Amino acid sequence: MTTEVEMSRMSWTDYAEAIATRDPAVLIPVGSVEQHGPHLPLATDCLIPEAIAKAAARRTGAIVAPTISYGYKSVPRCGGGQHFCGTTSVDAATLIGQLRDIVRELARHKVTKVSFVVGHMENLWFVTEACDLALREVKMLGLEAPRLMNVGYWEFLSKPTIEKAFDGTFPDWSLEHAGIMETSIMLHCHPELVKMERLTEHGPATLPVYDLWPYDTAQVPDTGVLNTAKGASAAKGKLFYDEYVQSFSDALVDAFGKSPSIR
Amino acid sequence: MTTEVEMSRMSWTDYAEAIATRDPAVLIPVGSVEQHGPHLPLATDCLIPEAIAKAAARRTGAIVAPTISYGYKSVPRCGGGQHFCGTTSVDAATLIGQLRDIVRELARHKVTKVSFVVGHMENLWFVTEACDLALREVKMLGLEAPRLMNVGYWEFLSKPTIEKAFDGTFPDWSLEHAGIMETSIMLHCHPELVKMERLTEHGPATLPVYDLWPYDTAQVPDTGVLNTAKGASAAKGKLFYDEYVQSFSDALVDAFGKSPSIR
Amino acid sequence: MTTEVEMSRMSWTDYAEAIATRDPAVLIPVGSVEQHGPHLPLATDCLIPEAIAKAAARRTGAIVAPTISYGYKSVPRCGGGQHFCGTTSVDAATLIGQLRDIVRELARHKVTKVSFVVGHMENLWFVTEACDLALREVKMLGLEAPRLMNVGYWEFLSKPTIEKAFDGTFPDWSLEHAGIMETSIMLHCHPELVKMERLTEHGPATLPVYDLWPYDTAQVPDTGVLNTAKGASAAKGKLFYDEYVQSFSDALVDAFGKSPSIR
Amino acid sequence: MTTEVEMSRMSWTDYAEAIATRDPAVLIPVGSVEQHGPHLPLATDCLIPEAIAKAAARRTGAIVAPTISYGYKSVPRCGGGQHFCGTTSVDAATLIGQLRDIVRELARHKVTKVSFVVGHMENLWFVTEACDLALREVKMLGLEAPRLMNVGYWEFLSKPTIEKAFDGTFPDWSLEHAGIMETSIMLHCHPELVKMERLTEHGPATLPVYDLWPYDTAQVPDTGVLNTAKGASAAKGKLFYDEYVQSFSDALVDAFGKSPSIR
Amino acid sequence: MTTEVEMSRMSWTDYAEAIATRDPAVLIPVGSVEQHGPHLPLATDCLIPEAIAKAAARRTGAIVAPTISYGYKSVPRCGGGQHFCGTTSVDAATLIGQLRDIVRELARHKVTKVSFVVGHMENLWFVTEACDLALREVKMLGLEAPRLMNVGYWEFLSKPTIEKAFDGTFPDWSLEHAGIMETSIMLHCHPELVKMERLTEHGPATLPVYDLWPYDTAQVPDTGVLNTAKGASAAKGKLFYDEYVQSFSDALVDAFGKSPSIR
Amino acid sequence: MTTEVEMSRMSWTDYAEAIATRDPAVLIPVGSVEQHGPHLPLATDCLIPEAIAKAAARRTGAIVAPTISYGYKSVPRCGGGQHFCGTTSVDAATLIGQLRDIVRELARHKVTKVSFVVGHMENLWFVTEACDLALREVKMLGLEAPRLMNVGYWEFLSKPTIEKAFDGTFPDWSLEHAGIMETSIMLHCHPELVKMERLTEHGPATLPVYDLWPYDTAQVPDTGVLNTAKGASAAKGKLFYDEYVQSFSDALVDAFGKSPSIR
Repeated sequence: MTTEVEMSRMSWTDYAEAIATRDPAVLIPVGSVEQHGPHLPLATDCLIPEAIAKAAARRTGAIVAPTISYGYKSVPRCGGGQHFCGTTSVDAATLIGQLRDIVRELARHKVTKVSFVVGHMENLWFVTEACDLALREVKMLGLEAPRLMNVGYWEFLSKPTIEKAFDGTFPDWSLEHAGIMETSIMLHCHPELVKMERLTEHGPATLPVYDLWPYDTAQVPDTGVLNTAKGASAAKGKLFYDEYVQSFSDALVDAFGKSPSIR
Repeated sequence: MTTEVEMSRMSWTDYAEAIATRDPAVLIPVGSVEQHGPHLPLATDCLIPEAIAKAAARRTGAIVAPTISYGYKSVPRCGGGQHFCGTTSVDAATLIGQLRDIVRELARHKVTKVSFVVGHMENLWFVTEACDLALREVKMLGLEAPRLMNVGYWEFLSKPTIEKAFDGTFPDWSLEHAGIMETSIMLHCHPELVKMERLTEHGPATLPVYDLWPYDTAQVPDTGVLNTAKGASAAKGKLFYDEYVQSFSDALVDAFGKSPSIR
Repeated sequence: MTTEVEMSRMSWTDYAEAIATRDPAVLIPVGSVEQHGPHLPLATDCLIPEAIAKAAARRTGAIVAPTISYGYKSVPRCGGGQHFCGTTSVDAATLIGQLRDIVRELARHKVTKVSFVVGHMENLWFVTEACDLALREVKMLGLEAPRLMNVGYWEFLSKPTIEKAFDGTFPDWSLEHAGIMETSIMLHCHPELVKMERLTEHGPATLPVYDLWPYDTAQVPDTGVLNTAKGASAAKGKLFYDEYVQSFSDALVDAFGKSPSIR
Repeated sequence: MTTEVEMSRMSWTDYAEAIATRDPAVLIPVGSVEQHGPHLPLATDCLIPEAIAKAAARRTGAIVAPTISYGYKSVPRCGGGQHFCGTTSVDAATLIGQLRDIVRELARHKVTKVSFVVGHMENLWFVTEACDLALREVKMLGLEAPRLMNVGYWEFLSKPTIEKAFDGTFPDWSLEHAGIMETSIMLHCHPELVKMERLTEHGPATLPVYDLWPYDTAQVPDTGVLNTAKGASAAKGKLFYDEYVQSFSDALVDAFGKSPSIR
Repeated sequence: MTTEVEMSRMSWTDYAEAIATRDPAVLIPVGSVEQHGPHLPLATDCLIPEAIAKAAARRTGAIVAPTISYGYKSVPRCGGGQHFCGTTSVDAATLIGQLRDIVRELARHKVTKVSFVVGHMENLWFVTEACDLALREVKMLGLEAPRLMNVGYWEFLSKPTIEKAFDGTFPDWSLEHAGIMETSIMLHCHPELVKMERLTEHGPATLPVYDLWPYDTAQVPDTGVLNTAKGASAAKGKLFYDEYVQSFSDALVDAFGKSPSIR
Repeated sequence: MTTEVEMSRMSWTDYAEAIATRDPAVLIPVGSVEQHGPHLPLATDCLIPEAIAKAAARRTGAIVAPTISYGYKSVPRCGGGQHFCGTTSVDAATLIGQLRDIVRELARHKVTKVSFVVGHMENLWFVTEACDLALREVKMLGLEAPRLMNVGYWEFLSKPTIEKAFDGTFPDWSLEHAGIMETSIMLHCHPELVKMERLTEHGPATLPVYDLWPYDTAQVPDTGVLNTAKGASAAKGKLFYDEYVQSFSDALVDAFGKSPSIR
């Protein structure tokens, strides 16, 4: 018998029983609706952390809450920029407020461990602010504060795997937008949503080390792909995915299994 | 060949082409993570408007944007109240801000018709405020304002259908929380998520015509079901669902097909 | 000797003594400045709940705080819409913040029972949010939380009275905007402010079950009256008014007289 | 025939006709619910500017909008402080937001001249911020900006009148809280609400030139009266009142009658 | 050996040791970037309270935190108005939020005495709101609340000194913007930043007792100087400065040396 | 003759003339008050970007606005964390609001080029949000939008310089908090504020790739130094500093000297 890991598919009684009896971590994918080139779907940054979170939940007994679908605005150097049609983003205050509210609710449920699983680099610092504000409010309310984790899943990729998958051509995480890593994982997890035939060969975009408004859209490829995804494969996707799931699962145990003395 | 109606599964180029060539309405389900008794999943208020929106999109050429999963706080007289474990809600400002941001983005995409498809009664007035604020901001930005619709899907049910399905025992929409209507539609659309064996027989909850804080939780059944769902069936679900899809599709044509002179 | 029930006319020492010795409920009318046809004044939604609150205060020993005059924006299906000159409304955040602040202050005064008496349908859900946020903040501050009630006064009208007053032609509360009910009460309470000679005969407005932006102002009568008030009379007004005062007084006793165990 | 000057008592059609045909100024009293000693009512800061505004409206053809009853928090050196029971105040953001919303609405009505008539010293700077934010937003919306005035009514008192009424004992405006000036005007305008027999003799409070939190409540008289009102009289009240009405009327003509070139 | 009084130049360990061992007051200058005529620098309102705060800190053992450089918007009657190039101001909410955050942090550091030293009249009421909100939040967080002081430094000038320095021509504090007082202190403290040769002779500006939007910029001298600074001198500056430093030092002892019973 | 580059020391007339005649960029250092070990002052993150900005301003004709002294909250992996005494930080909304307001003001001044010079890694994404919101508001107001740059100064360090200065032991930017780079620049620019004798030898801190709340403070050295600054020298400081100044000056020319066609 398999256990349901998706909160959205559980009845409240099943969820409540799980919280009361197993003290599971709750994992919250935080994605985006953002252009990912002509070959990947707009929800790529939701689908990847969802897949990783579900797999890690199955290994560790965690529960996966509904995904935050709309993320922070795209910047040129890691998401191509906010000028693309289809990219549908929210302001910082909106994202922060939503995550803060959800943590407050989970604290009311007596959840003690929460991990945001970020699939969109631009979200990271706003998740940080949400965690800080949520814990401040939870403290003000006199609730027991859950432990919180903020993870950009790509941070778990090890140097050996990078070497193996990129043959020394790994550019930089930010330029991997819609590139080999994301495309490969999508080929592994959602092959029906990938259109490899639309890919073209091109080198990584060259972008300055600072941000400019308005930015020069000519520096961003018209496709929105910052570095070609040619060379992506389901096999590489499995390599990435398996490592992410393993390392994230380990991190959950490592962080949340520690003695409560650090609280 | 079927056309993809889900924005999350479309690439940005396919989405952009659709906007540019067909001027489709964009439909946004606005649900909740809320207790729906022991027999229905926490995401019931997301799943029903999603199903209706997708079906209406297939009929009318619309596109369905990712669902707003976390809705406004539950009140006793239409959702059982906010004391249930599992119910995971956001503040008014959070919901309003999120919807306002999304409309602003759709206006940037040059979408001209947007419909919120509300699956959770408590959301309705906050969607109203979001629409007003979004249009104010869109105007300030000098963007072309999309036409906006705010629909509580249950409003489309006709008196004949109510008579047919309830045999004169229809209580009131607010008491239909996790009752015959929602359960029947779930049996029709997502039978694998309904646990009919968990239902018990009981009459409708009796709640005052005003709201109280703190409310008397004894007036709300422990299960969270405000009126028994005994009598729900997939056949009734099909009856409801078909009417909702038809009437909502008609409304889209009616509202958005009108001459632009009313803008 | 009659006792003063209006907080605005009491000195702080008299008010403080009342709170300390009688533990009265504090009633707060929440109205609007909104078109009510050519025959009723802009403050109709303030004047009616004020009259009801004062009468109920005289019966129950409550105190009536100054009215919230400016309410939430008018929507076509219950107030004619926001396009009328004279309608002067505030945003959701403004109304919510004002009510939250007032509850916080009343909690500081050691008031233990507060009822909002809403005279404008559009306010209801924002009063709900204000109550929730106020109690959250009161809790954070370590103050004793007052019990709160949110009442739309029209909810107290009984079926027999509706039958009696409308002869089976009662349309729907939302369409009663500036109609027979409001006009009759004004004829009973403030006849000098009603101009019956300005009324015209017309049937109820036909409005869709969803909200649209921009809405079709042609669906709203030019006068702003959603259903004719012909047939209104001071006698009917007394009937309505007496029932409201009685039922609201009963509700105050019922809700606030309960054992403190539900707190 | 007298003309109605109170917006709350006008129908929308009468109000709209006035705006369209006479271009009247709209005056908005901004008061407080604040302790004013044992002898004056909590709404003193509303009642005085209301009286002045109505009289000035009758002279100048202006319209008086509903009073903002709840003002900014009381500080010791001009209102006795926020520790009194009965004082019921709002936060800065709340007051600012409310006034900003109202100006936006009046701009929509095509009102071109608005004056806030402040009855509570603590409100003044927040009215200033509201005016600035309102005009910013009105500009963003592309509406014609009304001219705005922010008046603390007491600023109009002339040195001769002060000499005449106080015999050289005038302390300072801030200490005149519930003192001779306010009490005299209330005796002139609302004698039924003044309880002179409750007054005691005492000199002005001595308060530091800076603000402290928490402040020493021992420096504030227990009554809340910062300087004795002994010596107040209806005759002095008439003297003050007449000068305020005259000077404010003059100011309205002076400020709003100027050539539009300064706009 | 001199002790460092500037927090910005201390290491955290030195600062922490000072807090732990001497319980010093922390002084926070709150200035502006605002036109001060052609002869004084834009940061005049920062430089004067900084100088006073440092001198008072050396006398009393206090620590001076980094200055809040950007203050509230300039109004005509005390700063010339917001139409000048160079005046760089923030909204009320921004200033309030910044000061609230800083007090929260100082409370975390276990600082027990904080004084804002305001150099810009327009800031005063927003500092008041910040103090109130900060203490509310500190209370919510269960932190020990520091005592807070809000000082407009000019309030400390005594009548004898005014007489001595102005020869009976003192206009009013608000008109002293970039006038004799500020210019003299700058000549005493920062003579290299004063350009006396740019001064012209002119009487005080005549401004109404109310605020207007838009205001008549013709009533404000083109230079931005509200009353000529001719007659300013370093000697007068020393006179002012010495009195401010002495009186502020006394006030710190007076307010913060009191028995803790008032807390 | 040298030209003044500091806005705070310029009169408004000199500033206005510079804007009107030379169209200079305005540079705004954005620092923090944050522990930087026992050997560096709390304002290190202000002092370094100030020094770089002034030098770049002298080269390029730019003007340096007053520093934003209080930055975003410190996180363990780049600033040691928010548990240190002395670290004095603001919330995201506060920092965003302040920068947005300042850009709005500079746009009013007709400044066309603005660069934030960030000295504190935690600020970067909130500066990003401020730029986006400021430009949105500037657009709403119909002002000419300035071009904006967001620079973390450390991003300009070249690989050769890193190699030269670190001998292959460069850990990662985030761990360079209070390490060799910052200490060396301070020895070059502000040697009187550096206490090298307080340094101890230790390797880089080991921190997880994710953030945790509450974090394990045992993973952060008690001193707050994430990697030993032993080996820092004024000579290395000059090397870093010179490269930063040169590269930032080049970037200003590169970004702001481009053809206006990208605007």
